[in-house]
Amino acid sequence: MPRRNVDQAAIDDLVERTRASEPRAVARLISLVENDSPQLRAVAAALAPHAGHAQVVGLTGAPGVGKSTTTSALVAALRSADKTVAVLAVDPSSPFSGGALLGDRVRMQDHALDKEVYIRSMASRGHLGGLAWATPQALRVLDAAGCDVVLVETVGVGQSELEIASLADTTLVLMAPGMGDGIQAAKAGILEVADVFVVNKADRDGAQQTVRDLRYMQSLGGRFDEPGHWRPPIVKTVASREQDNGIDEVLEKIEAHREWLESSGEGHGRRTERAAREIEAIAVASLRERLGDVHGSAALGTLAEKVVAGETDPFSAADDLVAQL
Amino acid sequence: MPRRNVDQAAIDDLVERTRASEPRAVARLISLVENDSPQLRAVAAALAPHAGHAQVVGLTGAPGVGKSTTTSALVAALRSADKTVAVLAVDPSSPFSGGALLGDRVRMQDHALDKEVYIRSMASRGHLGGLAWATPQALRVLDAAGCDVVLVETVGVGQSELEIASLADTTLVLMAPGMGDGIQAAKAGILEVADVFVVNKADRDGAQQTVRDLRYMQSLGGRFDEPGHWRPPIVKTVASREQDNGIDEVLEKIEAHREWLESSGEGHGRRTERAAREIEAIAVASLRERLGDVHGSAALGTLAEKVVAGETDPFSAADDLVAQL
Repeated sequence: MPRRNVDQAAIDDLVERTRASEPRAVARLISLVENDSPQLRAVAAALAPHAGHAQVVGLTGAPGVGKSTTTSALVAALRSADKTVAVLAVDPSSPFSGGALLGDRVRMQDHALDKEVYIRSMASRGHLGGLAWATPQALRVLDAAGCDVVLVETVGVGQSELEIASLADTTLVLMAPGMGDGIQAAKAGILEVADVFVVNKADRDGAQQTVRDLRYMQSLGGRFDEPGHWRPPIVKTVASREQDNGIDEVLEKIEAHREWLESSGEGHGRRTERAAREIEAIAVASLRERLGDVHGSAALGTLAEKVVAGETDPFSAADDLVAQL
Repeated sequence: MPRRNVDQAAIDDLVERTRASEPRAVARLISLVENDSPQLRAVAAALAPHAGHAQVVGLTGAPGVGKSTTTSALVAALRSADKTVAVLAVDPSSPFSGGALLGDRVRMQDHALDKEVYIRSMASRGHLGGLAWATPQALRVLDAAGCDVVLVETVGVGQSELEIASLADTTLVLMAPGMGDGIQAAKAGILEVADVFVVNKADRDGAQQTVRDLRYMQSLGGRFDEPGHWRPPIVKTVASREQDNGIDEVLEKIEAHREWLESSGEGHGRRTERAAREIEAIAVASLRERLGDVHGSAALGTLAEKVVAGETDPFSAADDLVAQL
């Protein structure tokens, strides 16, 4: 995408139009933050005062559990409840999953004509990698646009569950019977990140066993029973093009979790922790850039020569480099 | 592994015994650097004067091309030529590949009784991730131990080919017929990193086609024909427990590449670039630690609160944080 120069007045105009929920302005602002454009900082500054309304709901789970179908059903249910919704589909990092993701997206076109639903696929491959960089900025744009709920869907494998949990107010972990999810959940620390468990494809054999496995694992981590703690509920769903059994109950749990976040103060805590991580990531990136400038000024090259010659070791050399900042 | 306190005299003693190629000392020093122990810096400093002898040869390629069998055959051939050899098997990051890797390692036990061959599997999961952290330190230990050649074998998928190329003096890229490697190679930028192509399992159908594909792709990147450039040769091999056809030719190409690295000055350039990257990575890690200390001192928390309240944006907050370093 070509990087056009966008001056401050144009950014203010885009932010105003975004606040009026104009889809083109939303898309343009997301492009500006997603591509790490020269305007990124100006956009972030202009958005700052307009944040804090949207509930960010993360959906994650292994491939094949029905994340896109569930997302689609949730969008329909939220629209019935007259909420404005955005969907952010994040492809974590695999260079090969892009195609499959686009294929899944086609189903979401059911909602594409509804102007209160904003759908966006993004491949976040900023220089910080993963979800860390572009996604929080895109969430701020959608928040400023007045979305009540932003659903962030990841191609949940590996790290992405943990990353999405750090972005979302409420994290849904999707499972399906017979996929050995119980054991995987324990391994991947999914128990720690889930606010709501959704056992999808609950009309299949083994659904009850998956629920039992989850309950058993929850019973091992006793802290959920302490007063004031949120005990992640387990909801069984059958989400497909034909039916959406259980989706209303998922919405109820999402709403109950939102109320708990407010009343317990946990919501503010999570948002603050999220902001802290983001600030830290930006600070590290900026320091790395400065080291690069030192590199340009030949200091790093000289130190590297010394390491190769055996005159110093890389740790002492790094100390020298940092001292020159 | 328990972290025992090791004082300077003990480290000097370990380094002396490592220089005498004593396997126990080598193992102990690698453990010290691999585990990011408090002694890491002292060990690195003590090793610094003893570096620069070993030729680091990286082997990479898709799973199933025969990396371990080829490594084993190369070890046997290098031993016949009276060279001391170490093998460093690096498991990049997949939490699931560890078992398979250990399975492969069993074959390497053919060489385990030969005291001039040092074999080590390492899972480099330092806080910098990937190969970036522990492997260069382990290579320095093996270099100080007087190894002529260190073979670094990765479970080559994704990023690891590029990382190994930044670690190795000479990078072998292994392929096998009928795996669609030609197209994958173009995608993954393998053409850029290979110093020697090895088409293994060359007794299978399609081997000649794989060679032709590689030659064609090389012809597209015309720079290899410029004078003074190294044109990566393509060697066909059949490495198995029963035979090692072509392995001697691979060794010849490795040796020819070493001579070219020396005569062209490229070898020194690569080592310097490698040291520069390492210094930079250590410097970034150390700066990140300092930001954490600022975090501890509550500055980050205050800034995060401001971001949540919409009083500032994360980029301005990051500037503030860096200014407080």
